[in-house]
Amino acid sequence: MAAEHILDRVLAGQESIQSWQDELYVHFHRNPELSFVEHETHDRIAEELRAIGVDEIEEHIGGTGLVGVLRNGDGPTILMRADIDALPVQELTGLDYASTAVGTSFDGETSPVMHACGHDVHISALLGAVRLLADHRDAWSGTFVALFQPAEERAGGAMAMVNDDLVGRIPRPDVAFAQHVGPKPAGQVHACIGSAYSRADSIKVTVFGRGGHGSAPHTTVDPAVLAAMIVLRLQTIVSRETRPGEFAVVTVGRLQVGTKVNIISDRAVLDVNVRSYDDDVHARLLAAIERIVRAECEASGSPTEPTFEYYDRFPVTVNDVEVTERVRSAFASAFGDHYVEDLPTTGSEDFSEIPKAFEIPYCYWNVGGVDRETYRDAKKRGVLASEIAGNHSPFFAPVMHPTLQAATKTIVVVALDWLGTEA
Amino acid sequence: MAAEHILDRVLAGQESIQSWQDELYVHFHRNPELSFVEHETHDRIAEELRAIGVDEIEEHIGGTGLVGVLRNGDGPTILMRADIDALPVQELTGLDYASTAVGTSFDGETSPVMHACGHDVHISALLGAVRLLADHRDAWSGTFVALFQPAEERAGGAMAMVNDDLVGRIPRPDVAFAQHVGPKPAGQVHACIGSAYSRADSIKVTVFGRGGHGSAPHTTVDPAVLAAMIVLRLQTIVSRETRPGEFAVVTVGRLQVGTKVNIISDRAVLDVNVRSYDDDVHARLLAAIERIVRAECEASGSPTEPTFEYYDRFPVTVNDVEVTERVRSAFASAFGDHYVEDLPTTGSEDFSEIPKAFEIPYCYWNVGGVDRETYRDAKKRGVLASEIAGNHSPFFAPVMHPTLQAATKTIVVVALDWLGTEA
Amino acid sequence: MAAEHILDRVLAGQESIQSWQDELYVHFHRNPELSFVEHETHDRIAEELRAIGVDEIEEHIGGTGLVGVLRNGDGPTILMRADIDALPVQELTGLDYASTAVGTSFDGETSPVMHACGHDVHISALLGAVRLLADHRDAWSGTFVALFQPAEERAGGAMAMVNDDLVGRIPRPDVAFAQHVGPKPAGQVHACIGSAYSRADSIKVTVFGRGGHGSAPHTTVDPAVLAAMIVLRLQTIVSRETRPGEFAVVTVGRLQVGTKVNIISDRAVLDVNVRSYDDDVHARLLAAIERIVRAECEASGSPTEPTFEYYDRFPVTVNDVEVTERVRSAFASAFGDHYVEDLPTTGSEDFSEIPKAFEIPYCYWNVGGVDRETYRDAKKRGVLASEIAGNHSPFFAPVMHPTLQAATKTIVVVALDWLGTEA
Amino acid sequence: MAAEHILDRVLAGQESIQSWQDELYVHFHRNPELSFVEHETHDRIAEELRAIGVDEIEEHIGGTGLVGVLRNGDGPTILMRADIDALPVQELTGLDYASTAVGTSFDGETSPVMHACGHDVHISALLGAVRLLADHRDAWSGTFVALFQPAEERAGGAMAMVNDDLVGRIPRPDVAFAQHVGPKPAGQVHACIGSAYSRADSIKVTVFGRGGHGSAPHTTVDPAVLAAMIVLRLQTIVSRETRPGEFAVVTVGRLQVGTKVNIISDRAVLDVNVRSYDDDVHARLLAAIERIVRAECEASGSPTEPTFEYYDRFPVTVNDVEVTERVRSAFASAFGDHYVEDLPTTGSEDFSEIPKAFEIPYCYWNVGGVDRETYRDAKKRGVLASEIAGNHSPFFAPVMHPTLQAATKTIVVVALDWLGTEA
Repeated sequence: MAAEHILDRVLAGQESIQSWQDELYVHFHRNPELSFVEHETHDRIAEELRAIGVDEIEEHIGGTGLVGVLRNGDGPTILMRADIDALPVQELTGLDYASTAVGTSFDGETSPVMHACGHDVHISALLGAVRLLADHRDAWSGTFVALFQPAEERAGGAMAMVNDDLVGRIPRPDVAFAQHVGPKPAGQVHACIGSAYSRADSIKVTVFGRGGHGSAPHTTVDPAVLAAMIVLRLQTIVSRETRPGEFAVVTVGRLQVGTKVNIISDRAVLDVNVRSYDDDVHARLLAAIERIVRAECEASGSPTEPTFEYYDRFPVTVNDVEVTERVRSAFASAFGDHYVEDLPTTGSEDFSEIPKAFEIPYCYWNVGGVDRETYRDAKKRGVLASEIAGNHSPFFAPVMHPTLQAATKTIVVVALDWLGTEA
Repeated sequence: MAAEHILDRVLAGQESIQSWQDELYVHFHRNPELSFVEHETHDRIAEELRAIGVDEIEEHIGGTGLVGVLRNGDGPTILMRADIDALPVQELTGLDYASTAVGTSFDGETSPVMHACGHDVHISALLGAVRLLADHRDAWSGTFVALFQPAEERAGGAMAMVNDDLVGRIPRPDVAFAQHVGPKPAGQVHACIGSAYSRADSIKVTVFGRGGHGSAPHTTVDPAVLAAMIVLRLQTIVSRETRPGEFAVVTVGRLQVGTKVNIISDRAVLDVNVRSYDDDVHARLLAAIERIVRAECEASGSPTEPTFEYYDRFPVTVNDVEVTERVRSAFASAFGDHYVEDLPTTGSEDFSEIPKAFEIPYCYWNVGGVDRETYRDAKKRGVLASEIAGNHSPFFAPVMHPTLQAATKTIVVVALDWLGTEA
Repeated sequence: MAAEHILDRVLAGQESIQSWQDELYVHFHRNPELSFVEHETHDRIAEELRAIGVDEIEEHIGGTGLVGVLRNGDGPTILMRADIDALPVQELTGLDYASTAVGTSFDGETSPVMHACGHDVHISALLGAVRLLADHRDAWSGTFVALFQPAEERAGGAMAMVNDDLVGRIPRPDVAFAQHVGPKPAGQVHACIGSAYSRADSIKVTVFGRGGHGSAPHTTVDPAVLAAMIVLRLQTIVSRETRPGEFAVVTVGRLQVGTKVNIISDRAVLDVNVRSYDDDVHARLLAAIERIVRAECEASGSPTEPTFEYYDRFPVTVNDVEVTERVRSAFASAFGDHYVEDLPTTGSEDFSEIPKAFEIPYCYWNVGGVDRETYRDAKKRGVLASEIAGNHSPFFAPVMHPTLQAATKTIVVVALDWLGTEA
Repeated sequence: MAAEHILDRVLAGQESIQSWQDELYVHFHRNPELSFVEHETHDRIAEELRAIGVDEIEEHIGGTGLVGVLRNGDGPTILMRADIDALPVQELTGLDYASTAVGTSFDGETSPVMHACGHDVHISALLGAVRLLADHRDAWSGTFVALFQPAEERAGGAMAMVNDDLVGRIPRPDVAFAQHVGPKPAGQVHACIGSAYSRADSIKVTVFGRGGHGSAPHTTVDPAVLAAMIVLRLQTIVSRETRPGEFAVVTVGRLQVGTKVNIISDRAVLDVNVRSYDDDVHARLLAAIERIVRAECEASGSPTEPTFEYYDRFPVTVNDVEVTERVRSAFASAFGDHYVEDLPTTGSEDFSEIPKAFEIPYCYWNVGGVDRETYRDAKKRGVLASEIAGNHSPFFAPVMHPTLQAATKTIVVVALDWLGTEA
């Protein structure tokens, strides 16, 4: 029996698990939890892994992380990772199962919460794949490690698991995988060779003015004006200081000045997100930000030095050439036209900390989540960017089908390519 | 016996009430309450008025406003107003009796609270003056109305009292007075003829971008950039569109964009405070703001029209010429060198709604609150603006003495000038 | 015979000189000359003074300045000054007699030239008044000094005359006068007590980038971006650092970056004009400009310190109280409704250097130049600012009548008030 | 005899032509001429071609363009192009032979002139190669066309030659070549496959304010402020509206506002240079510029629509894969370590119009011009960008040796690879 036949046989099981998987997805979507406080999510995943009957469950690795292991005789060990946290975004999708959750982050901020990055797809797909593999132990041989990682959005989840002795607590994999859902046609998959996700740093910049009454600006140093100058100056790092065509992003994601309209505040806080593929470029971006902020403070006559707090620091994600070529070949065969070649995404990921801890190669791929018809139509009308909501948007809403099936299938395809018993 | 003698006699009582008044001041300073929710402040004032033995108390006018009346035979009726609300500011004065209060505003926002505008001085001074006048009924004849107004900071308190039938519920005054403490030498007083406080409007401007992932700016319309352009453009209304020397202020007191560093938000909110003395100028300021905001939204390719919500609208405060000349003359005689002539303040006040409701003239004066030595030294070193905290600053800290005595004395001086029995 | 009668008698002569004066005006308007190079203007004025028959002419004081003296018996000596230079502006008025002149400035720049500030009105009015006074020597007694000053626009003309021994070369006046035409209704006059014209400084600011190819911004420091940041930052000096209602102007009148679209230049030049009435304010404006420019250069990573060249420095013009009250009273009587009280102008003048050299008081007044109907209509429609061209505009076009008559009459009124023989 | 031997033999002639070639280079460097007016350059090239003894000279193609042809029996025809115009830049290199020329452009602007883009290297190298090939006719067979093109810097020179019947006036080539000198180590060469030079457009943007006196900004619409806002907004096209990593450049190379410090002008002129490799990106850049400019004019209350004049439009330069691989292989063999692979340049070129007219493939390569020691040292100290002047800089100064030899050698290497008689 050829590999294709095994794959077909295992995938045939998708139909029977669909209502269970849909329900799981809706559950996670309705009950999103912020980074590092995914307590109920952790427990529900553990419960499902137990119901599926995995051979081992290792809970509470790095707080809310956990791992399920299917041991199935000799053969390689592969690891698939799903991230499980949600974002402080108020859902505006209008879906039946839209989130109305409000949560408090580990550092004390309360906000609406939404799976605006699709991690609910990742969880549901990985649980689905585990169930299919558990149901078809005859089709493969080796060890399959399903890793559910917390706090990807805050960059710390992977390291939290590593620092909590991940390497000592789970079987050592030969290779690691992860995937992400995004604003491409549902069912479509692609995997980049080399740089797949950018390096990223976040900086909380606090600049100081001198507070006072809104009617007496001359007695103050206005932090709103200072912050505005900084935001515009920061634009020139990419537009003027970076080689045209070099990947570099400087985003002010959050900007907070003042509490009351007629009080001029004594400070402004800018949260700046910086991305690149190249280390030298990265160093120059960070230096330029500090130079600009300091000089703009001087231009305002700021009475106090600005402060810079670095956080959420993501490594660059570089897919292994050999592993990725094997993944691409498996996808090309299994997905046909739906396998495409595409640009690396602009985002960042901390997944690579996990294979780095094991010193093993990895591949990170992408799956689409937009209704195909809708996508085709928006593309034809040239409104992809404006009408198709991307990750982190309050409108981000993967269509359930065939997104879940495809995201489950990718895992099964790769697992059987590495572990399949027949060729 | 001459007027001076009466005044001296009444003011001689200040010494005996000092410890009571200091304690009152510290109490109010430690227990600040936000606009419209000054419940405990209201109750404590009522309690003190009862203890003093005023002839009438009218409580809960416009929610948390109240009035105490001293009726003392024939003669004019004069009204003195003190405002009683505090601000959402976190106190940084380091005083023993600094506020650590946290409060929730009537519209649901929770924040630290501080008497950063000195209304605690106003309350304590008015209660002190009422006590002195009650203790020396032989020195004057007529009616003294002590009005405690809520929510001056939100511009609505005076109108709330007026709308709650203030005119029908208290004796009709012939003239009305109010005062404010500010960053001038303690003990110093001044009163402007004509425009004393500016007209003010606040506008909550919401502009819309298109949200998305921080790493994919090209799929978004970045509201942080849009807000920054608006803040800078707004500066040009005063610098380029207003006649040099014309009073005009456009302050962005609050600016909020986004919740998370790697999410580009779909909107920015700017709270803009606008002030002028002149009505035409005011109309042009408001028109310019709307023009600029709309055009900047277009420049950004904003997908949605901006919105403008007007609130906290203050009238202009114009001191009556005749009344103010009489006040100035009484001050000159009673305060000597400490009476000065000064520029109108740049701030705004809703006090004038009260005399307007009675169709009577009014005078609003100012008293200093800064230690004289400190002030003199800062002036000599040319650092007044940087070292002397103004109203609404988290460092605003009137020295207790002689600020309270002087603020009490102003009321007594004016009361006896209008109501004194000897001349 | 009363003073009114003398005045009426002298002014009756206006009719007979009108065609001569109109022709003079058209001549000067058509033949404008730039500051310090008003050679033909000088010669034509001298020729006219000779034709009128003044008693003395002193030519070439400070280059192209000159003075005509009418000596007429005992009595006070008064000085009236007219400035004679034009501007590097291309006239767009469409008038029959519009200037098409091109001239070269004393520092070597060639440009179109236009009397865009109305100095042609000043010359023609002063020559007209001299002629009327010369024709009616029986109506007055004393000495009338007509001073024609070069280079007012470059601030150096008055000092050039003073430095060329003006004091030693002309009769010593008891009082000095000057006037300016502006965008008010023709025939209207006003005179401010106290500050009448602002102090002004001009600064040539040169900031340095690093030049390079337009396609390689990352190898350069872009001076266009640097200059733009500076222009916007400078707006905040007036909008945020100056007390609301305090007179202060910071204008970037000229901004030059680069020569070719695909070359990033190595510098930008900003010509900045700064005005105030108050000396402290002035010092703070200049300090703020230097602080901002230096810090913005640092923010850009500029390789070289910026340079600041100060030029065209104008003193503040402060009308003497006593003299001005006398002028106002004469105007009120002679102009009736057309005498108004108005705000000081925002402009600057070097005239005061002349009375300062003689240590005498002075008054500087204003006359209107806009067709009354046009003005009234524009005011009604609220389009004064947009439809009525101000001084220095390429569209600035005083209507010949009654502008010339009124500007001539002001001089005669003041001269007879000081020198008239009957009362 | 192998190809290497032929090449060595021909290149051996470099020594004997060196002093002639150096002198030529110095001559052209000292006598730069602006685009379309390279009259003396044209004549001197023609004179040299005659002295060398080429078989045909076709002069005045497209004004100041010309072609020299070496016919040498059967074989392919290849075309090598050198561009010959200089730039309006004032040379600051301090070289002995620095240009002090001043010239007037075809559209009437006078300015200093400099070979700041190294076209003098291109001319001298091509003349050198023609001389070597003419001296060694036994080493090759076929036709060599040396084309000297005017006005590359203004984008119009290649089209001017094409429009002047270039195709009909010279032998039809099978393939075309061109080269450029830049800020890389002298002697180094590289050739990109595919996109080698960007598409470029220049736009003269005129925006309108309302002029007036510098002291009366409220009567004007200030074009300096408007221009500054536009310059900053334009930065966001690359920083926010373009996919990170996509090649896009928006440079404001020239910005002109006003003529005199105390006149607010009625307009600003911005010359904007736009570059990309991708057509869709290009369309979006142009649309964004127009959107931003129009909206900023509205924000300023501009009285008149802005105007956009497009000029100097360069096509994208895409090197033919097959031809370029052959060139790279020839370079690798002839230059050894000095042949490197590098990124495409960010600049633009109109050369491709010529092969496009003949419908033939082409390759455009780059040679370095910086002293190797200097380059190595600057690189080690991390100051390449700041210390090594790039093209169009007033400090751009290729070292004569080995730059000229290497630039000559590239042509000989490619010519013999296509036309060499032995292999």
